[in-house]
Amino acid sequence: MTNDAFYMDLALKNAQAMKGQTDPNPLVGSVIVNDNRIVGVGAHLKAGEAHAEINALRMAGDQAKGGTIYVTLEPCSHHGKTGPCAVAIVEAGIKKVVIATLDPNPIVAGNGVKILEDAGIEVVTGVMKDEARKMNEVFNKFIVTKKPFVTLKAGITLDGKVASHTFSSKWITSEEARYDVHQLRSENMAILVGINTVLKDDPALTARIPNGRNPIRIVMDSSLRIPLEAQVITDKQAETIIFTSQSYDKEKRKVLEDLNIIVIETSGTEHVNPLDVVTMLGEKGVSSLFIEGGGNINAAFLENKLVDKVILYFAPKLIGGKNAPTFLEGTGVDQMTDAVDLIDTDIQRIGQDFKFIGYPYYDNK
Amino acid sequence: MTNDAFYMDLALKNAQAMKGQTDPNPLVGSVIVNDNRIVGVGAHLKAGEAHAEINALRMAGDQAKGGTIYVTLEPCSHHGKTGPCAVAIVEAGIKKVVIATLDPNPIVAGNGVKILEDAGIEVVTGVMKDEARKMNEVFNKFIVTKKPFVTLKAGITLDGKVASHTFSSKWITSEEARYDVHQLRSENMAILVGINTVLKDDPALTARIPNGRNPIRIVMDSSLRIPLEAQVITDKQAETIIFTSQSYDKEKRKVLEDLNIIVIETSGTEHVNPLDVVTMLGEKGVSSLFIEGGGNINAAFLENKLVDKVILYFAPKLIGGKNAPTFLEGTGVDQMTDAVDLIDTDIQRIGQDFKFIGYPYYDNK
Repeated sequence: MTNDAFYMDLALKNAQAMKGQTDPNPLVGSVIVNDNRIVGVGAHLKAGEAHAEINALRMAGDQAKGGTIYVTLEPCSHHGKTGPCAVAIVEAGIKKVVIATLDPNPIVAGNGVKILEDAGIEVVTGVMKDEARKMNEVFNKFIVTKKPFVTLKAGITLDGKVASHTFSSKWITSEEARYDVHQLRSENMAILVGINTVLKDDPALTARIPNGRNPIRIVMDSSLRIPLEAQVITDKQAETIIFTSQSYDKEKRKVLEDLNIIVIETSGTEHVNPLDVVTMLGEKGVSSLFIEGGGNINAAFLENKLVDKVILYFAPKLIGGKNAPTFLEGTGVDQMTDAVDLIDTDIQRIGQDFKFIGYPYYDNK
Repeated sequence: MTNDAFYMDLALKNAQAMKGQTDPNPLVGSVIVNDNRIVGVGAHLKAGEAHAEINALRMAGDQAKGGTIYVTLEPCSHHGKTGPCAVAIVEAGIKKVVIATLDPNPIVAGNGVKILEDAGIEVVTGVMKDEARKMNEVFNKFIVTKKPFVTLKAGITLDGKVASHTFSSKWITSEEARYDVHQLRSENMAILVGINTVLKDDPALTARIPNGRNPIRIVMDSSLRIPLEAQVITDKQAETIIFTSQSYDKEKRKVLEDLNIIVIETSGTEHVNPLDVVTMLGEKGVSSLFIEGGGNINAAFLENKLVDKVILYFAPKLIGGKNAPTFLEGTGVDQMTDAVDLIDTDIQRIGQDFKFIGYPYYDNK
């Protein structure tokens, strides 16, 4: 590990530790080094409070002068609550700035660097950029597109099934994997299922872990078949929004709205339009969406290139069955060469299962 | 690592190095230690030649006296080409014997240990027994059951599919994974496919790697629909055996036999009976069978509890499709609790793919 990577890694660790407490701001960490000694560390703790660089500069005090600052995100150039960080860095007498990633917003990217360079400061960018970008993957997408970062999750057997041919599905994955799912629910602003999942399992879709934050519950229900006694309607543990198609039941809508359930029409004539769902959630400020749909819901989002990340929990089990449902149905691609490739893949054990993570790569399609 | 594990590990490494050259004998390695110095190492090199212990004793010479011998398999008690190894160990004046695994054959297991203990030698068993057992998994099964060790292999997308809904399947896995498959073909005595694979892909089923040993090619073909121009019929690169059902085409059988293709009837009235296939191959001395079947062949073997090991190559791709075939079809189990668990699982990267290994556990069914 180079010196730069060593210090940036510490900045990343500090940033990462604040996961879940900086929304809607990104995670940012910073380290200041002078004469081979760390003289300041900082992180952004909470929206409305000081940026990471400011916290690190405060800790360093006079020792910032002539030093090098490491920061996981380009210092800002705008006048926020604490003034532009790039200006504060210049004023502190910092000699060199090492940045992991530029601002994700292409309109302002490079502005912070420009202020620094104009002041004669040496600037290095790109150190541990992949780690830094991944840490803020949700923020980076939302700030640019105003659409939520979409994670598709499924718990499956090794033969790709989500249930047996008789639709038996309890339980596929281990307790450890299911706990992990509850953590992911807690980290996402909204969770989405299809009406069939509600009809079959009547899930609560809550984050059942200590200090779990329940996501907004989204149900895709093209004709409003949802039972009024469904948990997501009655339990009041979190907001529930139902997205429907043009062919919904008008009477049922009124009944649902009287129960404080939000019903939103999409442009789909028979099916709920998934692009509308994502767009409309983005307009409501929902920056992250966690899909726990069945094979058709999953296929609809993937075919529309709306999935940003795929998380699969493989249970080491085989169930077989030509008619047993898999987690990805629909029509599917025609040719193997049209398959959606997942890049930046990772797999690790979780309990007796394996957790796979990958990112769909649509650019070559 | 304990001292015992350190020496046994070396014995295992020597044994493992002979993979492929000891058939039909197992891999065995041995190390002799005296006064904290290694005074002999040995392995079984070839059927008909000296056992591992004898080779190690020869290297040690007089220095074996008072030493400890490590051996990956219980020393034999029978009079083979070099006399019983247990007796040779006693005669060499060895003081202590450390054994990884007892003889896999329950009828003779413990006989070697008895000779040693009766001579007053200290015997420790079970050191690195899992590694030693796995190294000889094929031998261990065949020597006891006279049936081949069956490995089921599939190259699949992350959604479990082996082809798109239009049956496009080239290529799912990476070159590295396909190379690995050719190595596995070379390590197995026979390879099995169903007639549909022959009709669709016309595979050669050979081991296309340097020094690859082509396995015997087995085709399950219930009515003898195999085309006479199929590669496995015409290319003469390896023996081809066709297993058929009671409802096969009698005329076609004669034609095939005239082409030196062996046709074997099984007891199945309409379908080939997979248990008969395994039993009959065992009678022919085939100790290992590699299945590269489609979803129905795979399901038939798994449902009959004939699969000993499962190897899956997961390509990081998604293709979807309710009608796209998965690698495990048939009817499948009814309840999730009836799923076949795979134990002793492992997963590792191979090229851009992931190679999964697991062992079906049928005892709780």
